[in-house]
Amino acid sequence: MEIVKGIVAGNIRSIARAVSIVENNMEGKEELLDELHTHTGNAVVWGITGPPGAGKSTLADRLIQKERSEGKKVAVIAVDPSSPFTGGSLLGDRLRMQTHATDPGVFIRSMASRGHLGGISTAAFDAVKIFDAAGYDTIMVETIGVGQTEVEIIELSDIVMLVLVPGMGDEIQAMKAGVMEIGDIFVVNKSDREGAERLKAEVEYVLMISEKPKESPQKKICMTSARDNTGIDELHRILQTKHTEDLKSGFLEEKRKHRLNKELSNLFYLKTREFLEEQLSIGAQMDTWIEGIYKKEIKPYKFISEKMKELKKEYVKG
Amino acid sequence: MEIVKGIVAGNIRSIARAVSIVENNMEGKEELLDELHTHTGNAVVWGITGPPGAGKSTLADRLIQKERSEGKKVAVIAVDPSSPFTGGSLLGDRLRMQTHATDPGVFIRSMASRGHLGGISTAAFDAVKIFDAAGYDTIMVETIGVGQTEVEIIELSDIVMLVLVPGMGDEIQAMKAGVMEIGDIFVVNKSDREGAERLKAEVEYVLMISEKPKESPQKKICMTSARDNTGIDELHRILQTKHTEDLKSGFLEEKRKHRLNKELSNLFYLKTREFLEEQLSIGAQMDTWIEGIYKKEIKPYKFISEKMKELKKEYVKG
Repeated sequence: MEIVKGIVAGNIRSIARAVSIVENNMEGKEELLDELHTHTGNAVVWGITGPPGAGKSTLADRLIQKERSEGKKVAVIAVDPSSPFTGGSLLGDRLRMQTHATDPGVFIRSMASRGHLGGISTAAFDAVKIFDAAGYDTIMVETIGVGQTEVEIIELSDIVMLVLVPGMGDEIQAMKAGVMEIGDIFVVNKSDREGAERLKAEVEYVLMISEKPKESPQKKICMTSARDNTGIDELHRILQTKHTEDLKSGFLEEKRKHRLNKELSNLFYLKTREFLEEQLSIGAQMDTWIEGIYKKEIKPYKFISEKMKELKKEYVKG
Repeated sequence: MEIVKGIVAGNIRSIARAVSIVENNMEGKEELLDELHTHTGNAVVWGITGPPGAGKSTLADRLIQKERSEGKKVAVIAVDPSSPFTGGSLLGDRLRMQTHATDPGVFIRSMASRGHLGGISTAAFDAVKIFDAAGYDTIMVETIGVGQTEVEIIELSDIVMLVLVPGMGDEIQAMKAGVMEIGDIFVVNKSDREGAERLKAEVEYVLMISEKPKESPQKKICMTSARDNTGIDELHRILQTKHTEDLKSGFLEEKRKHRLNKELSNLFYLKTREFLEEQLSIGAQMDTWIEGIYKKEIKPYKFISEKMKELKKEYVKG
């Protein structure tokens, strides 16, 4: 495939086209990803998540600078809450990380977090593969929030940074707790603010009472002020050390296989669903069934159970 | 079933037990829901969503007061981001809407937003059915954020209030845009704050350029200050008027059938997946396949496609 050659050669236009193909679930996607597959596995994927206003984009910006200073190529996938009206991202490429707009070693791509067939996580997973095959050394995936979508996206990362800030109120603190399990590095950003030390102590306490040292590497905490470029060197060092350690210990391989397992399961899920909808003619009869359930003539679970029995009987016959 | 009798009679302990059954996907769940099915369809379901700090709980509190003053029974399902460490909700019943803690006409239940088999949306959908069958007139579902999870939860509502506040910064405004399509009523809360009028004008503008008057009822905007109890009467009136109109126009029936369709599809999805994992022995061979893909010996999509062919061949034989 011509496009695969372009991607592997690092051609920007080929990459952009490929990302559109996976994002819009266009024809040729599966073949494209199969062809790219052998070229993947070299990039490191960093996830950056945390509540709105935590300074994730500024932090990403600083980390890009660090990576560029070592000559590494960096791709950023910024997953934005999308507007159904503009049909795309609101914040988008335009506002984020503009300092790198003219650097050919940096590729920044926004993805809208809704309206994807198969979910944003599928599209983001696929985009990571494209950048990986295209020779980007580091791929950052930045998301807002802590919903299921964000957790899924974070699962595609080798290392997850959870960015927290002091003094964001109770609800934010609760959101924080919800994602603590998925963070590898806890970044207390805006560390010049009041309450930064207390927040750090809180995180340390929660980690202390929850740590499972046998199963997984130790979680790290880092204080930064991305705006003032404070603590970025240390964070960068932590990221690099962790990667080296995870490679050596086999933890990274395990994590990546776990990810593959998830992807393959999802694919089976999608494909078998298509197949069964065909076999059971679900589409055509759905309206009649719904009407029966709505009128209380049909009990939903009993109905499903009977339908499944029909299918199994036919199947077992074969 | 004894528990069904208890629920229909409004017995608090039966209701609480039933919610635990659906939340933990316990045995007897399907039969229970089938038995409750004929008793449902009377409650009105209000969804309340918006960014952290928008004042959703205070607003819910005020609306409970209004409903109670008319003698209506109210159930609230508060979907919290959950902590994996506490194993439950952080904010929980304890902090929310405490003023109604001793009122037997109000039932407040927190649900954690993660770690549910089949997703939180399934558990929340089921809980709504339980409260409906138990004779609660109004069921409020409150969520934080705008992730996929929240959108799913919101889909179970007859009317969705999107709570916004002035001056929450760019990211929040973007999040707002992401859920505008799902809001029926836009509540500009903390309307005494600077920027409230501008926010209202912005929402009006976006609604104006996006309105599809033929397909759906007109969206409403309402200014409130839940803390000061300002604008609550008007909001309550809008909610009641909208319900009456939607009943009359058939819009509510259509919405509820659409919801049933989604539920039934999901059930088919889950059940057929179980069945096929059995048939293809996916579980047992997964590790071998993953190893092959990891070593680049297997191309994932080609592999899936072949597996599906195998299945179809066998099936068609029958």
